[in-house]
Amino acid sequence: MWEIDKKSKQPIYRQISDQLREKIMKGEYTPGSVLPTERKLAEQIGVNRSTVVHAYDELTSIGLIERKRGSGTKVSTQKWGISPAGSTNWKAYVDSGSFLPPHPLIQKIHELSHNKSLWNLAGGELGPDLFPDSLLKPQYEKILGAEELFEDEDPQGYRPLRETISHHMKEVYHVDTTADSIMITSGAQQAIYLMTQCLLSPGDAIAIEAPSYYYSLPLFQSAGLRIFALPIDEEGINPEDVKVLYQKHRIKLVFLNPIFQNPTSVSLSEDRKKELVDLCASLSIPIVEDNPFSLLSYDEESGSLMKSKDQTGNVLYLGSLSKTVGSNIRIGWLIAPKTVIQRLMDARNQMDFGLSIFPQLVADHFMSSGKYQEHVDRLVAELKDRRDRAIEILERDFKDYVTFQTPHGGLYIWLRLKTPIQDSKLLHQAANHGVIIMPGSVLGSSEGYIRLTFARLAKDELEAALEALRQTFHSLIK
Amino acid sequence: MWEIDKKSKQPIYRQISDQLREKIMKGEYTPGSVLPTERKLAEQIGVNRSTVVHAYDELTSIGLIERKRGSGTKVSTQKWGISPAGSTNWKAYVDSGSFLPPHPLIQKIHELSHNKSLWNLAGGELGPDLFPDSLLKPQYEKILGAEELFEDEDPQGYRPLRETISHHMKEVYHVDTTADSIMITSGAQQAIYLMTQCLLSPGDAIAIEAPSYYYSLPLFQSAGLRIFALPIDEEGINPEDVKVLYQKHRIKLVFLNPIFQNPTSVSLSEDRKKELVDLCASLSIPIVEDNPFSLLSYDEESGSLMKSKDQTGNVLYLGSLSKTVGSNIRIGWLIAPKTVIQRLMDARNQMDFGLSIFPQLVADHFMSSGKYQEHVDRLVAELKDRRDRAIEILERDFKDYVTFQTPHGGLYIWLRLKTPIQDSKLLHQAANHGVIIMPGSVLGSSEGYIRLTFARLAKDELEAALEALRQTFHSLIK
Repeated sequence: MWEIDKKSKQPIYRQISDQLREKIMKGEYTPGSVLPTERKLAEQIGVNRSTVVHAYDELTSIGLIERKRGSGTKVSTQKWGISPAGSTNWKAYVDSGSFLPPHPLIQKIHELSHNKSLWNLAGGELGPDLFPDSLLKPQYEKILGAEELFEDEDPQGYRPLRETISHHMKEVYHVDTTADSIMITSGAQQAIYLMTQCLLSPGDAIAIEAPSYYYSLPLFQSAGLRIFALPIDEEGINPEDVKVLYQKHRIKLVFLNPIFQNPTSVSLSEDRKKELVDLCASLSIPIVEDNPFSLLSYDEESGSLMKSKDQTGNVLYLGSLSKTVGSNIRIGWLIAPKTVIQRLMDARNQMDFGLSIFPQLVADHFMSSGKYQEHVDRLVAELKDRRDRAIEILERDFKDYVTFQTPHGGLYIWLRLKTPIQDSKLLHQAANHGVIIMPGSVLGSSEGYIRLTFARLAKDELEAALEALRQTFHSLIK
Repeated sequence: MWEIDKKSKQPIYRQISDQLREKIMKGEYTPGSVLPTERKLAEQIGVNRSTVVHAYDELTSIGLIERKRGSGTKVSTQKWGISPAGSTNWKAYVDSGSFLPPHPLIQKIHELSHNKSLWNLAGGELGPDLFPDSLLKPQYEKILGAEELFEDEDPQGYRPLRETISHHMKEVYHVDTTADSIMITSGAQQAIYLMTQCLLSPGDAIAIEAPSYYYSLPLFQSAGLRIFALPIDEEGINPEDVKVLYQKHRIKLVFLNPIFQNPTSVSLSEDRKKELVDLCASLSIPIVEDNPFSLLSYDEESGSLMKSKDQTGNVLYLGSLSKTVGSNIRIGWLIAPKTVIQRLMDARNQMDFGLSIFPQLVADHFMSSGKYQEHVDRLVAELKDRRDRAIEILERDFKDYVTFQTPHGGLYIWLRLKTPIQDSKLLHQAANHGVIIMPGSVLGSSEGYIRLTFARLAKDELEAALEALRQTFHSLIK
């Protein structure tokens, strides 16, 4: 029997869900038993079908009942009424969040990466052998006393580090900035996350390079953003495309990795940088200039920053130690107007109260002592060698399979397959031959591309890994 | 002239906004000039007023026009069409995020905290003089080699630290857990943030203690949660209240700080802990047991954990070094079912790729070497002294003004004012007398309460600070 009081202050769906809950608890409906269809129950009680749907939805959301296509609505078998000491239906809880899972091929690559017997040409990072030993000898006690260190938590980041970075930006890039315009973040990634949360709303449009490593991150999709692609040619993206996207879709932010772009290793030409900075200033839309690679230049100067051409504060600059030291240190920095930094700081304060002091101390000591520059010099020499070896092998053994441009910096070679192969098949087959590769489609390209990281393996390992890749192609392409 | 094509695929509001934009660019409407009212323009074009509202909204959102009550709609003076090298309207950007600003009194207290000449009885942390010197001598190079360290980034947290914490939980709390059930977070705060993002949806109901330090965090409101209060008596919250809130509001999660609660320093009684664990298991709703204080026990054993009574994995446990070492280190941990940890890891991976290795190494070395326990022993002795001194002074000099219970642990004394004073007035007047206090309303109580932190000041400083507080009361209460 159902007792529905249509004059009650309690909504009718709630009365239904309450009574149904009671029936389940009393055992009137047992675990696994089928409940009436929505239509039937609506008729029985004398309410709209949508009211019953609402009541069922509520009980579903707390995991008390389950609805399956084809087999109707059932009392959950994992729930209260069944075992007096029940456990939370965690599945119902974890399904309710807003974060999307990563791309299935990324998950596959991640799984494969645990297998240390496979050569890894897929990872985006430096190999662990390139990590600077000197980072492990910070000896804080010689730098600072405990009290001095723990006197002030600074939500913007450890001030001496911000000053060090400000000098670094001036010396290396001719960018004038101050410690007040710099926020230290947990890698550049955290800055990107904070920007999506603080400067953009669901439904907003943004533009990113295609292909781009941003495609491998579900973070823009998780934030409900509409993503528009800026194709890359040999001079990088075309400013004209940004204009068109603004006119058509009112893009609110342009995310770019203009120097030695991940994955193409293409750099935006100087003319286009200038054009783009002016265009975005005139449209009053900000550019995020994400620059993890510019110190890794092997043949020539790596070119100027858009930030150095920025007169209006329109360019939000992202720096990072992830690609020159290691991402495990998790130090990035954002240069932005004070309003933006204030907002991002407030948000981060809610998320985690800010960064640990330890990686900031390590980074400050490393960067201000000159050890960072020494390390980068050694790193560049080693990476140039690895690139040269990889190119040599590709030119010698891969003529039938791929075309590519020699990268002048960064960590990647972008291979175009002469005969496209389905990505999941390629990944699978490569693993069978002992090598992990990153299919381009994960990074937003069409099928038939591979991002090859030459930075993770020593030269002799590279040779073995590329031989395994050659055999993979040989087995797939007749 | 307006050219509206009602048969076009482009929505009419978009046609209007496009043409208006063009008029502004061409100078037909100049910066600062007043645009027609919505009603007038709608008549002129022959469309619904709501269509014009939509078009104006869009141009407002990109900062091209501004709408003010009373003075109508104007062309922005800061925008494109005005200066060819314009700057982004950052205000429009930062207003669009989902994070709420902190409570105004919190902001005020934060500002006052920069003034080092004021005695700070408001901060929730230990004083910097209590920070262990030994933490500054980690000497990583003696523990590990660089390669070993940087071989694997672990999104769940540095595994040796998770093992150390698993031992700690067993030895100190008799909780059986494994490294696999532990996730290292950037303080307990990050775990709370991740739970609001991953386990809850906007509109969901949760229950928290009242008063509670959670009220000082805008994070639940930012996540769009409905918050229900669980009043505290001398035995903590009443399980019966949880049941009622579940029945009335379908609360989905209970956040508790059951031992030496912030700010009341009350501990949940053993009977109620048991009752609550059983109740929440039977309702299948999880309890978050947030436990930063239990090691800071001055008179007796601090009591058992709800987690130690949890048979079903229903209790999500939060540990932290923030209140026993310092929050600048930013190490917290969550013990939870694998499903939950997996989801939270995925989400954090999108936010910042996880924690820096450095604070984790520091924490592991500190906790596994026995130095943590030595430090806690010294800390407890010192804090007990500070508490005793504070209580002595309060009993001697504050009889006319406040009542309180002596806390048996934690960092706070919860004062009830015999004559309530308006909180902002109290804060202001206290600052004039040289002392910063935390009004209870910030923590969700009614006016007339203060949370007094005895852990930030040395004994002689405490004396001076309390004398300043006494004078404040004297000046306000006749």
